[in-house]
Amino acid sequence: MKYGHFDDKNREYVIENPKTPYPWINYLGNEDFFSLTSNTGGGYTFYKDAKFRRLTRYRYNNVPVDDGGKYFYIKDGNTVWSPGWKPVKTALDSYECRHGMSYTKFKSSKNGIQSEITQFIPLGFWGEIQKVSIKNTSSEIKKIKLFSFIEWCLWNADDDMKNFQRNFSTGEVEVEDAVIYHKTEFKERRNHYAFYSVNQEINGFDTDRESFVGLYNGFDNPDVVNDGKPKNTIAHGWSPIASHYIEMELQPGESRDYVFMLGYVEVDENDKWESKSVINKQPAKQMIEKYNNVEKVDAALEELRLYWDNLLGKISIDSGDEKLDRMVNIWNQYQCMVTFNMSRSASFFESGIGRGMGFRDSNQDLIGFVHQIPERARERIVDIASTQFEDGSCYHQYQPLTKKGNAAIGGDFNDDPLWLILSTSEYIKETGDFTLLDEMVPFDNDESRAKSHFEHLKASFYHVVNNLGPHQLPLIGRADWNDCLNLNCFSTNPNDSFQTTGNKKDGQAESLMIAGLFVTYGKEYIKLCQRIGNEKEAHEAQIHVDQMIKAVKTHGWDGDWYLRAYDYYGNKVGSNENEEGKIFIESQGWCSMAEIGKEEGMVENALDAVKEHLDCEYGIVLNSPAFSKYYIEYGEISTYPAGYKENGGIFCHNNPWIMIGETMIGRGDEAYDYYTKIAPSFLEDISELHKVEPYVYCQMIAGKEAIKPGEAKNSWLSGTASWNFYAITQYILGVKPDYDGLIINPCIPKKWDGFKMKRAFRGATYNIEVSNPDHVSKGIKELRVNGKLISGFIIPLLEKGKAYDVKVIMG
Amino acid sequence: MKYGHFDDKNREYVIENPKTPYPWINYLGNEDFFSLTSNTGGGYTFYKDAKFRRLTRYRYNNVPVDDGGKYFYIKDGNTVWSPGWKPVKTALDSYECRHGMSYTKFKSSKNGIQSEITQFIPLGFWGEIQKVSIKNTSSEIKKIKLFSFIEWCLWNADDDMKNFQRNFSTGEVEVEDAVIYHKTEFKERRNHYAFYSVNQEINGFDTDRESFVGLYNGFDNPDVVNDGKPKNTIAHGWSPIASHYIEMELQPGESRDYVFMLGYVEVDENDKWESKSVINKQPAKQMIEKYNNVEKVDAALEELRLYWDNLLGKISIDSGDEKLDRMVNIWNQYQCMVTFNMSRSASFFESGIGRGMGFRDSNQDLIGFVHQIPERARERIVDIASTQFEDGSCYHQYQPLTKKGNAAIGGDFNDDPLWLILSTSEYIKETGDFTLLDEMVPFDNDESRAKSHFEHLKASFYHVVNNLGPHQLPLIGRADWNDCLNLNCFSTNPNDSFQTTGNKKDGQAESLMIAGLFVTYGKEYIKLCQRIGNEKEAHEAQIHVDQMIKAVKTHGWDGDWYLRAYDYYGNKVGSNENEEGKIFIESQGWCSMAEIGKEEGMVENALDAVKEHLDCEYGIVLNSPAFSKYYIEYGEISTYPAGYKENGGIFCHNNPWIMIGETMIGRGDEAYDYYTKIAPSFLEDISELHKVEPYVYCQMIAGKEAIKPGEAKNSWLSGTASWNFYAITQYILGVKPDYDGLIINPCIPKKWDGFKMKRAFRGATYNIEVSNPDHVSKGIKELRVNGKLISGFIIPLLEKGKAYDVKVIMG
Repeated sequence: MKYGHFDDKNREYVIENPKTPYPWINYLGNEDFFSLTSNTGGGYTFYKDAKFRRLTRYRYNNVPVDDGGKYFYIKDGNTVWSPGWKPVKTALDSYECRHGMSYTKFKSSKNGIQSEITQFIPLGFWGEIQKVSIKNTSSEIKKIKLFSFIEWCLWNADDDMKNFQRNFSTGEVEVEDAVIYHKTEFKERRNHYAFYSVNQEINGFDTDRESFVGLYNGFDNPDVVNDGKPKNTIAHGWSPIASHYIEMELQPGESRDYVFMLGYVEVDENDKWESKSVINKQPAKQMIEKYNNVEKVDAALEELRLYWDNLLGKISIDSGDEKLDRMVNIWNQYQCMVTFNMSRSASFFESGIGRGMGFRDSNQDLIGFVHQIPERARERIVDIASTQFEDGSCYHQYQPLTKKGNAAIGGDFNDDPLWLILSTSEYIKETGDFTLLDEMVPFDNDESRAKSHFEHLKASFYHVVNNLGPHQLPLIGRADWNDCLNLNCFSTNPNDSFQTTGNKKDGQAESLMIAGLFVTYGKEYIKLCQRIGNEKEAHEAQIHVDQMIKAVKTHGWDGDWYLRAYDYYGNKVGSNENEEGKIFIESQGWCSMAEIGKEEGMVENALDAVKEHLDCEYGIVLNSPAFSKYYIEYGEISTYPAGYKENGGIFCHNNPWIMIGETMIGRGDEAYDYYTKIAPSFLEDISELHKVEPYVYCQMIAGKEAIKPGEAKNSWLSGTASWNFYAITQYILGVKPDYDGLIINPCIPKKWDGFKMKRAFRGATYNIEVSNPDHVSKGIKELRVNGKLISGFIIPLLEKGKAYDVKVIMG
Repeated sequence: MKYGHFDDKNREYVIENPKTPYPWINYLGNEDFFSLTSNTGGGYTFYKDAKFRRLTRYRYNNVPVDDGGKYFYIKDGNTVWSPGWKPVKTALDSYECRHGMSYTKFKSSKNGIQSEITQFIPLGFWGEIQKVSIKNTSSEIKKIKLFSFIEWCLWNADDDMKNFQRNFSTGEVEVEDAVIYHKTEFKERRNHYAFYSVNQEINGFDTDRESFVGLYNGFDNPDVVNDGKPKNTIAHGWSPIASHYIEMELQPGESRDYVFMLGYVEVDENDKWESKSVINKQPAKQMIEKYNNVEKVDAALEELRLYWDNLLGKISIDSGDEKLDRMVNIWNQYQCMVTFNMSRSASFFESGIGRGMGFRDSNQDLIGFVHQIPERARERIVDIASTQFEDGSCYHQYQPLTKKGNAAIGGDFNDDPLWLILSTSEYIKETGDFTLLDEMVPFDNDESRAKSHFEHLKASFYHVVNNLGPHQLPLIGRADWNDCLNLNCFSTNPNDSFQTTGNKKDGQAESLMIAGLFVTYGKEYIKLCQRIGNEKEAHEAQIHVDQMIKAVKTHGWDGDWYLRAYDYYGNKVGSNENEEGKIFIESQGWCSMAEIGKEEGMVENALDAVKEHLDCEYGIVLNSPAFSKYYIEYGEISTYPAGYKENGGIFCHNNPWIMIGETMIGRGDEAYDYYTKIAPSFLEDISELHKVEPYVYCQMIAGKEAIKPGEAKNSWLSGTASWNFYAITQYILGVKPDYDGLIINPCIPKKWDGFKMKRAFRGATYNIEVSNPDHVSKGIKELRVNGKLISGFIIPLLEKGKAYDVKVIMG
């Protein structure tokens, strides 16, 4: 069952039924200032850090779901309705929510009144704009009352939902003209405030929630709206809100436009006050003026559209399958930008106060983003590397506001450092910018301990070399990529975190996944050594890589697949010897991608085993059989009910590793089959089961052993986005940047006749047309650029600023 | 305006209008297992620790307020209503909520159906009972459908409201017969589960919230109730709930009784499972059987009533003023028990996850509780003292589940240690049990570092002596009792806690409040030294006390009142020299209670200054003038808007210090005037302004400089309860336990003719009748015990087990 449709031309998903199986959301903002917006007007806004600088309040896991947001109430006679359906939930004559690229539009109507709302954040702006248009489509004069509504968060979103004995006494606002200012704590340590404005005169306002809503009412029937008149309240403590009240009389056919703005202002410490206790409003007024009419707003919207034209124009395909095209051309790339911005901090499943930017996460997010805005990718790589220590270890997370490592979480996730080689090598391949390797980058955010970025990569590489276990395999530390496989840190205390409880000092657990990762990015590290002329180091590193390959073949092969790990006690994890958890996906993915034992058939065997044991209708599960009881020595993984999350769920992030592995042995049908199983656009028709958005990837789909296989959770913020984009574009479609040029080496389903891709690369544009007359999965018979035959798979670097026709014949 | 009335005979407050100005709540449970219950059925349940062992979910600061709780839905034809009015909010034909001593009753009716619900927790039991009676008072046969509803919290209340990417995948339940078991995480590290049962066969159930409520519905109109039939769902992840469904057909006049139970079970690690994945239900079944019919329940209720008869029977008065009598005889004592149990952890303003047990708070809470159950008081004193360090310093808080100090908060609140002398001396005065001084009590919870409890008191005393500042006054540390006067720890970072940000190493700020506290409890310490025959130490201590008195007189007197402090820079705080915050209440209270400079008139001057500068219609404000801007060197205090909280609010906790101070100079009219200004029963008629419960004290009433003077916040969990009880009974009514007997020394309003008090003390009962023929405030002409004249103010210890008539004539 569908709840809407894709409008590919406008790059929108159009929701036609507000009662989606779960709130379907969108993100506004691309740099410092962000909003989350659901298809019924729910969500919230923050500046940079969803924990420490939350502008508006939001209640997670509420009843009704997603109650609270940025709302409008239209009172037309005795009928009250909301353009987003919620909160009032009056049945609408028409409803449409369009989630587009960094904007969301609502178009709805009731009793001859039509409303259109467009929400977005102009580029480089610290404010959300809501363009509101109200039109009388009836043949009678209409007297309409419009109420806006937002609820302020008292900045720190964590404290805001705990510390009521303080927070109910601190709220402060000012109102001047049509602008409501939220200035809680501005008096003291904050140099910032927020405001909510409208570009026209208002007929009243409210800033005190209880006065507006009524103590015992819900957002669905506020007192003031019911009464049809504002109370002009000034909040002192309790819960400050901002609500404008506007009266309008509309002739038949007449419409009115309004520009609302939810803005954020920082002022200089010496410039905070206009007069005693009156805040300096000049910066806010300048912001308001910037978009004080519809023309200016529309220009900003157009600018935003062009911005996305440019970003999405860098890679686009025409495959003949609209579901694939819309993933690659629009939604997957869009999601990559969102994960780049948000890491795992704020979604409708991530509360914005639990996690900062992840070292591992953010490095991986880059591989789906680097082609869009390489400059920001480089900046991010440096931010991440700056939280590393000299021995290569690093903080697992850092806070976006301070860019400092999060000491409460700590480090010792031994895969973390290697991902820095991934992001760096992908950045250089995309851009050719080797200067990054020379940039001086601090350790532990201490400028005095800065060394070249190359030294960070070296530290990352040797962090593995220097932390090998009894089988010469990498020590896992607290956990590797699978945060829930906590082989060296486990505790019987239910109040201990699985992941931050002390790492056992004598922990000897080893990870085959890190081994595969090490071989894969060890090879990249060697290439980089060679590129900068450090042959000695390249030679040295090669020895370590070879030793690791040998160790995996000797101690990491279980007969039909790669082991997953050795646990704290030296027992095998992910072996046929085990009763449950006999096989895991991660080591099959990474050792296949590393091509360890490929010649001996290990890769093919392992991938066959994945097909046999892990594949199911909805994707590839993480492990099988799922754990039916608790194994303390495995940590968090077996705490999940079988079939969910890391315990036998389809943890989508790792599925592309298998897709890529399949392309290593030329199996395009298998690779693409796995791709379509979890790609959201292919799941649109089962939205009632899939539950979350059909336009973005989710972290997890319930696996074959779950109670409800196919039900998805945790949409939006997942490494799934970048890895799937990477797998489909660079390994299945096979267009892959490399240091010296663009590799063309598709691995596609045999039945395909070919496909087209437009690819910007190093300043040139490649119009690639792949044909597959022999219906093979892999192999190129002929590669021509502007008609000229090229031998091999790689198009060398060509002159910038030009477009090239690339014709590829597979066979 | 009133929303109900006091029923003193039944010791109940009877709410007649469900729409109170804020939820008015009650506490069930007296030892390990607790519930908070509002007058409309909102609230939650926990075992021991409201953060780590939360049984049911609750949403603070919700819209509508207090949405979510333990609900019943009655479906009678097409009418759905709730006995507590909420969540359905159908207008009722009658409604009554009776908050009593550890129980709450709802009696309401609609369309000829009458419901009665009694909620309580039997003594020593880990389960809440809900006795439900449904009666057909109409003349027709009624077919009624009854749905129960609770929502499970996934144990850790903090994680439960943040970590959705995990928590939406972990929920697990079992259903057997009429019992719904919540077993999330039982599989792994938890050895406990919860259950919700009813003592009769059910016609169905639900355990999945979305299925029961509907994604877009509120608690006010759940799908299942609307449809009139359950879905018999088993929750897997998302949000597990428990709802029973019961059909009944009632003849005219017929009624049915049901016993619901919300229980908590701990099982032995080796005894967790009945069979694979099926939990061991035997302990739950035993609990259920214990109260499986109305007779057993009524017996438990009667037992609870007798328990409170006994507790409240120890002190009771007949003053001729029912408002005063109900405070002293019922509600203030009841609140003292609640604060003893909860400290500052769980109320409708304290979210249960912010704070553990406070060192300072819990010591003070004891002075209103020690006469009720001295054994528990002693146990608590030892728990508190065990978190102290050898140098007398201590953790500011500890967690009730572990009894370990809270390292995240730390220590350095330099008043903390002294309160241990208060609680210990009050305990010994009440009980005569000097053996406490010899008990071996650990330092820092380390048994190997245990010393006698007396050594803890000594360490407390010398912690002040060893931490004197430039004026020989006590260094304040991070703060003293006024947590918000952070004179040595302040930061410009708005994300730093005011109270836990690093204490400045060279901090020289000094506190006059600690000085007064030191003199007061230094004198007690000296008495204890003498009692145990340590004259040398008594002499030594006296020197330090005398020096402190001298230091206060020399450096702590501002001319008309006591200074409050010296700040980090050595500047005066609370001086006429200051522009704002010229005078503070705390030092006036404590230096008066310590009688420092009494002979020179300082006490009288200071109390006159309080009257002039701090008193207002609704009580005594903390400081004046309130701060209108931020003074970073004062810390949190000036962050509050003027008139609220510690910045010019009526912080009720400290008002009794002034009352006691007034009794020191014999001004009974002033003392009692202050008493009645903040005593909730005296404020019942202005409930619409006062907002919070008229039967318990609150932490804060908005002061004279506030926008809404008289509006109260933060009810229930405040040291206000114990201090007011202490002030009224021991200083105003003047019946005060002492080491050698019972002191009788009232200080009352002159117009009083006298009063009666029944007082249990050291095993005897004293029926005291005070008459005041000369209409004085203070002074005793004659004191007779069983007719026998006693000289002085103190009745010596008399034979236990007997009752004594005490006649007192003032004059």
